[in-house]
Amino acid sequence: MKTVTWTKEQLKSDERASVVAIEAEMLRAARHYFDNFGFTEVVVPHLTRATGACENINTMFDVDYFGTRGYLAQTGQLYLEALIPHMENVYCIGPSFRQEPDVDERHLTEFTLIEIELPCAFDELLQHIERVIHAMVHRVAQRRKRECRTLGVDIGRLRAIRTPFSRVTYSDAIVMLQSTGVAVTWGDDLKSAHEQAIVAQCGDAPTFITHFPEAIKFFNMKRNAQQPDLVNSADLVVPFAGECVGAAEREHDYATLVEKLRASSMLRMLEKKGGSIHDFRWYLDHVKSGIEPHAGCGIGLNRITQFVLGSDDIRTTTAYPLNRETLM
Amino acid sequence: MKTVTWTKEQLKSDERASVVAIEAEMLRAARHYFDNFGFTEVVVPHLTRATGACENINTMFDVDYFGTRGYLAQTGQLYLEALIPHMENVYCIGPSFRQEPDVDERHLTEFTLIEIELPCAFDELLQHIERVIHAMVHRVAQRRKRECRTLGVDIGRLRAIRTPFSRVTYSDAIVMLQSTGVAVTWGDDLKSAHEQAIVAQCGDAPTFITHFPEAIKFFNMKRNAQQPDLVNSADLVVPFAGECVGAAEREHDYATLVEKLRASSMLRMLEKKGGSIHDFRWYLDHVKSGIEPHAGCGIGLNRITQFVLGSDDIRTTTAYPLNRETLM
Repeated sequence: MKTVTWTKEQLKSDERASVVAIEAEMLRAARHYFDNFGFTEVVVPHLTRATGACENINTMFDVDYFGTRGYLAQTGQLYLEALIPHMENVYCIGPSFRQEPDVDERHLTEFTLIEIELPCAFDELLQHIERVIHAMVHRVAQRRKRECRTLGVDIGRLRAIRTPFSRVTYSDAIVMLQSTGVAVTWGDDLKSAHEQAIVAQCGDAPTFITHFPEAIKFFNMKRNAQQPDLVNSADLVVPFAGECVGAAEREHDYATLVEKLRASSMLRMLEKKGGSIHDFRWYLDHVKSGIEPHAGCGIGLNRITQFVLGSDDIRTTTAYPLNRETLM
Repeated sequence: MKTVTWTKEQLKSDERASVVAIEAEMLRAARHYFDNFGFTEVVVPHLTRATGACENINTMFDVDYFGTRGYLAQTGQLYLEALIPHMENVYCIGPSFRQEPDVDERHLTEFTLIEIELPCAFDELLQHIERVIHAMVHRVAQRRKRECRTLGVDIGRLRAIRTPFSRVTYSDAIVMLQSTGVAVTWGDDLKSAHEQAIVAQCGDAPTFITHFPEAIKFFNMKRNAQQPDLVNSADLVVPFAGECVGAAEREHDYATLVEKLRASSMLRMLEKKGGSIHDFRWYLDHVKSGIEPHAGCGIGLNRITQFVLGSDDIRTTTAYPLNRETLM
């Protein structure tokens, strides 16, 4: 697969305009899909306490919030979940912040996250994910031909994207990697190089890696009924960008959820920063009051754009890519 | 006009769900309008330096950005303006942050701002504003009848909104206020009570107040050709919420812009915080390189929602209203 290796500095103004137009088209396609499937957009807070964190609470930006510690949110997931009993299918699109100092082709300190939550089972969730991404990619191929030409994007590659996407379990992926000589052990988190190796072995196409070990994933992912050391989760990995979606069924049993939160590495990180399980009280109370089975995901827009552009550099995916050096 | 005085604490879950559905419908209507008029959505940064500030830089939340001072953005205006030469009509929708400690019916520390910038004259800008707000209000009346009933919103009041909106100059508004005994002097900024008095005198309907004194407005608003102590600006004021839109032609002459920035109270505030005019260098350079006449505005979504709901309390306008006491 051809690799385009342009960097932000090399972006000419017509290229930048093309990127903006493509990004806008993908947002439009996503919202159009959500509208068609009865999702309601929710405005979630971007200043939060610990309930705005993803797995690694140490990558949150702190904000002095009138003398108490606030954070810049990484996810609106728990805020969406709390609305499911009243709204059913919900989504939000907005900034996600990571205090990551790396200045390279894989890191942004602010990026756009598309999140959905809905009362559904695992398979239906994966179908929504592959279908919305299919809609986003094909809409660019249909409506942004000129911009694709400007950027040297092969429209044929976009048109070739088909659903359903391949599915491989985490356990099979580990075996697959080991069989090609990669030094990786069951229980390890997958690194970027691992993801690319799996994508390559799955036809250089978007691939779901499913059923990760519970220990390496977010505390509220639901345990697999057959194999309780696994969770009903999926990461979508794509050429060029690697992991672009994290998805899972959510634990809706109160006692199990509290047990999982207590055992999580996230809570230990939070306690080291002076927080406690009480920071999750409003969410736990919400689950305690009764919530139907549900599932959801976060789609990293810039990673999908990277895949569409065929770019090795996430800094090429938006008008104002933000990392440690580009604050303006 | 009837006043609904429900507060966040009184919101029942079906009322909250109705508010979320109405807010989503208004966002959908706005995006639909922008799509129809050739606007491209732009993802702007929410972590910025001083170029993310509105008039009062002292209300920005500070963020320690890898050892340098960053801020949570209040506006994407300058970032949108920089794209006009390549994209023409652009818009963004996202959070705007204000470090305001007040816990009351008028303040949020995070709210949703809808911003547009386009190459156009002042009158065309005002037309876009009244038309997009007309579209938002009427779409709620058409498609969210059930939610309006749940919330006791008088749909007839929404249907009665007509364009064009009334227009009154700032100078005439001052005379109007003085004639009813209000103690206000030409050159004063308008307070909330002033805005409501003007709305009441203009038929209890959305009203543009235009051509403010230069001294009390954002540095890059364009001077009026006939009266150089005025700028070609407009605030839209509405029943219940007061000011909900700030709009203006932008200064595109480099020398004038630099002179206006140097004379601005914003720059003096910035210098007190350790910043300087160099924080605006990228934007000034952009204007220096040549930009066509253009104009734009920021529409405070929560204020429009307040007007639609007929609510005196901005905390009733969204699922997670954020002020000093509600961080979660």
